[in-house]
Amino acid sequence: MHTGSLKLIAGRSHPDFAKAIARQLDIPLTPTDFVRFSNENLMIQIMENVRGDDVYVIQTASPPVSEGLIELLITIDALKSASAGRVTAVVPYFPYARSDKKDRPRISITARLIADLIQTAGADRVLTMDLHAAQIQGFFHIPVDHLEARPIICDYFRRRSLADHVLVAADAGEAKDAGGYASKLKLPMAIIDKRRSADDEKAKAQHLIGDVEGKHTLIIDDEIATGGTLVEAANFLVKSGAKSVSAAATHGVLSGPAVDRLTSCEAISELVVTDTVPTKEKKIPQLKRLSVAPSFAEAIRRIHYGESISALFR
Amino acid sequence: MHTGSLKLIAGRSHPDFAKAIARQLDIPLTPTDFVRFSNENLMIQIMENVRGDDVYVIQTASPPVSEGLIELLITIDALKSASAGRVTAVVPYFPYARSDKKDRPRISITARLIADLIQTAGADRVLTMDLHAAQIQGFFHIPVDHLEARPIICDYFRRRSLADHVLVAADAGEAKDAGGYASKLKLPMAIIDKRRSADDEKAKAQHLIGDVEGKHTLIIDDEIATGGTLVEAANFLVKSGAKSVSAAATHGVLSGPAVDRLTSCEAISELVVTDTVPTKEKKIPQLKRLSVAPSFAEAIRRIHYGESISALFR
Amino acid sequence: MHTGSLKLIAGRSHPDFAKAIARQLDIPLTPTDFVRFSNENLMIQIMENVRGDDVYVIQTASPPVSEGLIELLITIDALKSASAGRVTAVVPYFPYARSDKKDRPRISITARLIADLIQTAGADRVLTMDLHAAQIQGFFHIPVDHLEARPIICDYFRRRSLADHVLVAADAGEAKDAGGYASKLKLPMAIIDKRRSADDEKAKAQHLIGDVEGKHTLIIDDEIATGGTLVEAANFLVKSGAKSVSAAATHGVLSGPAVDRLTSCEAISELVVTDTVPTKEKKIPQLKRLSVAPSFAEAIRRIHYGESISALFR
Amino acid sequence: MHTGSLKLIAGRSHPDFAKAIARQLDIPLTPTDFVRFSNENLMIQIMENVRGDDVYVIQTASPPVSEGLIELLITIDALKSASAGRVTAVVPYFPYARSDKKDRPRISITARLIADLIQTAGADRVLTMDLHAAQIQGFFHIPVDHLEARPIICDYFRRRSLADHVLVAADAGEAKDAGGYASKLKLPMAIIDKRRSADDEKAKAQHLIGDVEGKHTLIIDDEIATGGTLVEAANFLVKSGAKSVSAAATHGVLSGPAVDRLTSCEAISELVVTDTVPTKEKKIPQLKRLSVAPSFAEAIRRIHYGESISALFR
Amino acid sequence: MHTGSLKLIAGRSHPDFAKAIARQLDIPLTPTDFVRFSNENLMIQIMENVRGDDVYVIQTASPPVSEGLIELLITIDALKSASAGRVTAVVPYFPYARSDKKDRPRISITARLIADLIQTAGADRVLTMDLHAAQIQGFFHIPVDHLEARPIICDYFRRRSLADHVLVAADAGEAKDAGGYASKLKLPMAIIDKRRSADDEKAKAQHLIGDVEGKHTLIIDDEIATGGTLVEAANFLVKSGAKSVSAAATHGVLSGPAVDRLTSCEAISELVVTDTVPTKEKKIPQLKRLSVAPSFAEAIRRIHYGESISALFR
Amino acid sequence: MHTGSLKLIAGRSHPDFAKAIARQLDIPLTPTDFVRFSNENLMIQIMENVRGDDVYVIQTASPPVSEGLIELLITIDALKSASAGRVTAVVPYFPYARSDKKDRPRISITARLIADLIQTAGADRVLTMDLHAAQIQGFFHIPVDHLEARPIICDYFRRRSLADHVLVAADAGEAKDAGGYASKLKLPMAIIDKRRSADDEKAKAQHLIGDVEGKHTLIIDDEIATGGTLVEAANFLVKSGAKSVSAAATHGVLSGPAVDRLTSCEAISELVVTDTVPTKEKKIPQLKRLSVAPSFAEAIRRIHYGESISALFR
Repeated sequence: MHTGSLKLIAGRSHPDFAKAIARQLDIPLTPTDFVRFSNENLMIQIMENVRGDDVYVIQTASPPVSEGLIELLITIDALKSASAGRVTAVVPYFPYARSDKKDRPRISITARLIADLIQTAGADRVLTMDLHAAQIQGFFHIPVDHLEARPIICDYFRRRSLADHVLVAADAGEAKDAGGYASKLKLPMAIIDKRRSADDEKAKAQHLIGDVEGKHTLIIDDEIATGGTLVEAANFLVKSGAKSVSAAATHGVLSGPAVDRLTSCEAISELVVTDTVPTKEKKIPQLKRLSVAPSFAEAIRRIHYGESISALFR
Repeated sequence: MHTGSLKLIAGRSHPDFAKAIARQLDIPLTPTDFVRFSNENLMIQIMENVRGDDVYVIQTASPPVSEGLIELLITIDALKSASAGRVTAVVPYFPYARSDKKDRPRISITARLIADLIQTAGADRVLTMDLHAAQIQGFFHIPVDHLEARPIICDYFRRRSLADHVLVAADAGEAKDAGGYASKLKLPMAIIDKRRSADDEKAKAQHLIGDVEGKHTLIIDDEIATGGTLVEAANFLVKSGAKSVSAAATHGVLSGPAVDRLTSCEAISELVVTDTVPTKEKKIPQLKRLSVAPSFAEAIRRIHYGESISALFR
Repeated sequence: MHTGSLKLIAGRSHPDFAKAIARQLDIPLTPTDFVRFSNENLMIQIMENVRGDDVYVIQTASPPVSEGLIELLITIDALKSASAGRVTAVVPYFPYARSDKKDRPRISITARLIADLIQTAGADRVLTMDLHAAQIQGFFHIPVDHLEARPIICDYFRRRSLADHVLVAADAGEAKDAGGYASKLKLPMAIIDKRRSADDEKAKAQHLIGDVEGKHTLIIDDEIATGGTLVEAANFLVKSGAKSVSAAATHGVLSGPAVDRLTSCEAISELVVTDTVPTKEKKIPQLKRLSVAPSFAEAIRRIHYGESISALFR
Repeated sequence: MHTGSLKLIAGRSHPDFAKAIARQLDIPLTPTDFVRFSNENLMIQIMENVRGDDVYVIQTASPPVSEGLIELLITIDALKSASAGRVTAVVPYFPYARSDKKDRPRISITARLIADLIQTAGADRVLTMDLHAAQIQGFFHIPVDHLEARPIICDYFRRRSLADHVLVAADAGEAKDAGGYASKLKLPMAIIDKRRSADDEKAKAQHLIGDVEGKHTLIIDDEIATGGTLVEAANFLVKSGAKSVSAAATHGVLSGPAVDRLTSCEAISELVVTDTVPTKEKKIPQLKRLSVAPSFAEAIRRIHYGESISALFR
Repeated sequence: MHTGSLKLIAGRSHPDFAKAIARQLDIPLTPTDFVRFSNENLMIQIMENVRGDDVYVIQTASPPVSEGLIELLITIDALKSASAGRVTAVVPYFPYARSDKKDRPRISITARLIADLIQTAGADRVLTMDLHAAQIQGFFHIPVDHLEARPIICDYFRRRSLADHVLVAADAGEAKDAGGYASKLKLPMAIIDKRRSADDEKAKAQHLIGDVEGKHTLIIDDEIATGGTLVEAANFLVKSGAKSVSAAATHGVLSGPAVDRLTSCEAISELVVTDTVPTKEKKIPQLKRLSVAPSFAEAIRRIHYGESISALFR
Repeated sequence: MHTGSLKLIAGRSHPDFAKAIARQLDIPLTPTDFVRFSNENLMIQIMENVRGDDVYVIQTASPPVSEGLIELLITIDALKSASAGRVTAVVPYFPYARSDKKDRPRISITARLIADLIQTAGADRVLTMDLHAAQIQGFFHIPVDHLEARPIICDYFRRRSLADHVLVAADAGEAKDAGGYASKLKLPMAIIDKRRSADDEKAKAQHLIGDVEGKHTLIIDDEIATGGTLVEAANFLVKSGAKSVSAAATHGVLSGPAVDRLTSCEAISELVVTDTVPTKEKKIPQLKRLSVAPSFAEAIRRIHYGESISALFR
């Protein structure tokens, strides 16, 4: 186990989540003083001695995303220069996780840049959940503990009868992850085949590979952002004869037009997300929230005491 | 001289300034494609081949400051992975320059952290102006060219008769810089002595060291943020018998209540700033703008051709 | 363009490929002296002055893989300490590309380690083709040029009538890449759904998502190693009614039982690979080889002269 | 607290100070064997096992300064390669602290270079006092504990009646620090305005901003080197009507002509310095020494046990 | 002492040696799962939780040398990303130790490269024995514990009467090490003077400096590779009148023609090596093996508990 | 060739040597302003624009050694922050070259530390001569060009008849280097066997291995420091029947008692050194100086123009 005390620090991005972890671990959040000057510069002061301690900074990627990231970096830097023994960046929803490759010329692999910045600020470890691509773990030179929401989401769906259900990948790129869920839930699979009619057009759902006629369908993804892809997929499935569409995602980003779009989408009967990002103010009738705070709390406990995290997933 | 082509890239923080530099150098800005996704993630694509080129990315610290900084870092990273030959971060007003020391326990020296982040992203050089403290240059391990607005501001004031003028430092901490201006303009000096009545109170102007009775006063600083210090100083000087108060600063941040405060401050007859930050929308009657874009353009030209920058200041 | 001379150095892994590039660029290979001592230590001496030069070391991942990697690292180190101006590791088939994530506890993300080793040895750039996952590019902090065999493989198949053809993904994990080929070749798609009957068993082809009845099928992947997955898929497709099975892959590793397995597999009528790994001694009747050496040669030329690589793919 | 034993090592620069700390902490100095070969190369051997220990190397910047610095670096390197658990460089007076910015072209920010060298040698932390500029702390990427002599110097002066006393800044550049003392001692302030008559001349005291007529004056600075500035200021104050001049500084460097100059300066009635540099051989009648060794000892104790240092200053 | 548990991991290069250390320390080897895929890529999984532990990976340089090195690097990387507290590379016979300098142009100092690779993989310490040159220790920036076989080899020879014995250096380059043995065993010394007749020829034994007429001779070196030098020396000594030739070396590499060569060399009556490399299958009648596993075990114990290693050699 | 201008900067350690190089290359030394403040802090200002230039800083290890080293580091730092294109540290006699290994516990491998410091300061290359051990080259991660004085020293001795000459190694540790000279000059060899009578005593010449009776002897080493070893060897040779003793060394350090000792040593008839260190003030009657400045000049020219250095030695 780590020789210093376990301490939790909450960034401003998702205080409820940090509080839930603190409650679970039965320790108080370490107080900080946060000032946002009129020129938008931030000042974070740690209000307690942390010399030698094992500190976990909890900050997710929710708006304002850039400011939240800078806040995280400043907090880590403040902790390291205050002689904290070990600093773990706890980032339930990792920013820029979809910017993980150069799929066009002269862009940044920004997920890698973010990893670099977090390390430059001085983090010793990272704890996160369901990175868009597992390869992102390799962007770090510090140890990363990578939690999965799959057991929690599968448990949720297993509570109903899954007869006549089909797991659907919203496009070919999601087939791999969807396959993982299908196999875990022992469901057949179908894939929506999206194509572009011209090079400069957006890909559209054009065929269904597999069969959903008269079936209940599940679409499970790592994140729901604007909901555009999901709504298109749900409508396409209903048109293809599906009896119902349930959707789930680890990260309920629900940004931009998502709330309106999903609220008004009759095809979707249920939408399940976890609390890696705050959704308190997203009023979507079909929305169901599952908490992963207990998983994070248990992971933090195990990291502090030097116990196996992988044993969590067995 | 650098063996690649000189290229300019404008961040979104201050396009007018970038255009002024481009005009001065008579080269076009290199086009970029900027996307801000609904989840606030940014994507910047450089739209032209930059292999081996000598690229200058122009981004100042104006709102939204955190997002502008992330944009700068992503742009630099994109350029480096696109094999740019050399990347110079041109940051006319450097963010967090006042967070340059640990004046309370357990805070970050954020100006140093920003320097680290810029280097981590891959910048090869930095070009900036009037850092709050000259020591900040030492926070970088890459060469920094540090321009000064003093010659331009002094030229402006020298156009009037400076008889019966006094240079005033708004507090003891500004005495050093004010002394520089006083010596350059051959003016006598006075200092406002601010004190706290109790430990948890804000320092207030309490005495004037030196004499301003019947004099025209000049207050020149590196930046004006909310204008609070300046307005307090101006009123104090008028109360102390000053005939007039003119103010100047390199960086016209003018954030928060600054516009209202300064507009309604009758003590201040003139307020001079440069264009290191955009002030187009700041409607302050006394405001006078001086452009430092020609200085930046000339510095960029000299960096590219390997000519001396210090010769600029002789 | 780079100010030094363009020089090519061939590792021992694939001399034919290096020679093909040299022929294409019409420059000789720079001679090296290679010694393998009886204690298996290697010594590589560069036999020509390379001060300031732009040197490309060509080494692919073919047996003996570990020794080839060490040879690459030693060569790069020798070049850097000989004051080469810039060293590019040209690695047509990147070793350990499938070790790109932690899909079980306490393993190495070895593709990232290899990236680290290549950078530690002193490489300034990397040139490679069809990494198993595009994210691997993010494992490097030096610029990576990532070529694609897709245009060459598609050109090959477009020479025949593609009526009644279906593109098949050998499992859900391949659906994304297969989708790319399907879209490029304007073919419908099917996916083989592999499942495990028990946790400790290997996944087996159990269902076909989509339809191949009476169709010609194409299976295209990034690499063929032992051929096990491919043979299983081909037999499954024939059993599912496919008229024929053609297979293609960028990297024809063809290791272990591959030659026997594929030779005796009647279901596969054609097997197309490129020359990123040597296959001269693999006697498989259905084997067809396409050369990507001209692409590498052109990419090297463009890197040297500072021209755009992405323009190659337009 | 650190898991290894607390050990103290004395460099040769200021053995009395190291012994005072050791006495305070009631532990012996760890013995070293120091050899200075005839070619001026140094050899330092640590004479006790230090594996895993928490070692503090005490070395200040006193003549021979360069050799003392090299000795410090070699000692740190020897400790790290001897597997010391943590090495703290205790540098009461930091060398080159006034070389903290580029105030002329093409010079080194040597304080930053020194910080780099200390980190390169392997130091894990730094403990120092009254850096010329607080920004120097940002030159380090390792934690720095920065002690202040102000409480000790203020305590000393508070023992007398401070009625009719004025705190004087010897030039505008010192106004900020002087302001800190003035506010702490609740004294009014005056500033000596130094100007150059021509560009190539030295600045000279020309005006007094504020009033010292009939007052006792205090000049407090971070260091006294040759005493030139101080003597000039003292004479100027007496000429300006001051009743007496007392001077104080944290670092009593007293180099070159300082002893003669100060001894013969009748204007200065008292000169107070701490023991961050050895002054045993400086025979100046007005000299009064205060010890900061107890502060260093207490700071070392707190660092070792993981207690707050900032609490020391409350 | 280290706060984590002491764990031993055996690479595949020399399992008997690892087992001997484990036996000595009375702890089990930590199990690993090792897979060598048909494409020669390796996968090593640590089968037990190692968070915070003090892990020693035992891997020597024996064939296949390159693969053994890659295996070591992957194992270290896996341990670090599994959050091991400290990883020590235990390398009894260090690969490429004779590639320690640039004795011809444009080669790699490969021993330094290997040191870099081991550090890049994440090792925190190294434990090795009898490096070809002691300077190699300086190639590392992490602590190296360097054991010596000399006491063990001297003890062996001291068991006989050493009257009429001479210690012989096989060439001038070995005179320094031979001198160490001669002094330890209190024996006179002779040196074989090897010369090249022409620049492109191999050096040959041409003169004997000193006298061996009627004496028993000992040749002791750090390693015996092909045995060529040794056999030539032994024959030369016999021709020069030596009564007998005994040879010893720390590292019994015995590669290539060594077994045949030494078996058939009648001049050599005895050949003593340690077990830093496996020699079980080398059937050489004169071969005598001494074990240094107890020395390694004791060194590991001391490193773990923070005790002095140098005390081992007193 | 390097794209910037070739510039030479002379440190204060050996201005004659720098001037000789400048003369040879027919370019002026770039002027610097050097200030040594009374507190022994140094300030070095480069007095000419060096942006993009190829700068060679010439500084050898002669007293005051520590200060010379700090001066070198500051100069390099100043050049890098002044945007010099490439900085080469030209160090004819490398400081601490004999501190190249840990021959006792808990010491620093200071030659490695010095290499680290030079790299930290920002040097891009090093040019030096006759390092005590060739392995020291491996202490650098930047390219090192390592010149040899052997051709010049051999040329000098070849001018006489070498009949009846023997090359003598002053102890076993020097046998390797002596062997190199013996082979080059085609001379027989002898070795002085030094032994300690007790562990705490100094080793003394006790036997001669080989024969010098009636011969002229040459002792050639890399450096002569206090001359103690040399004088002891010379007397021993004369006692052993040598007709004469000539000595030579690359680096004529001649420190401490060397001048007296050598002047009064009748056994030594001639002492040859090069000018890597200044010896102008060493009045030793037998002293003969050879200049290696032309070699350094030619090496600098070749480095600048990208020509082979090894070709120099063919």
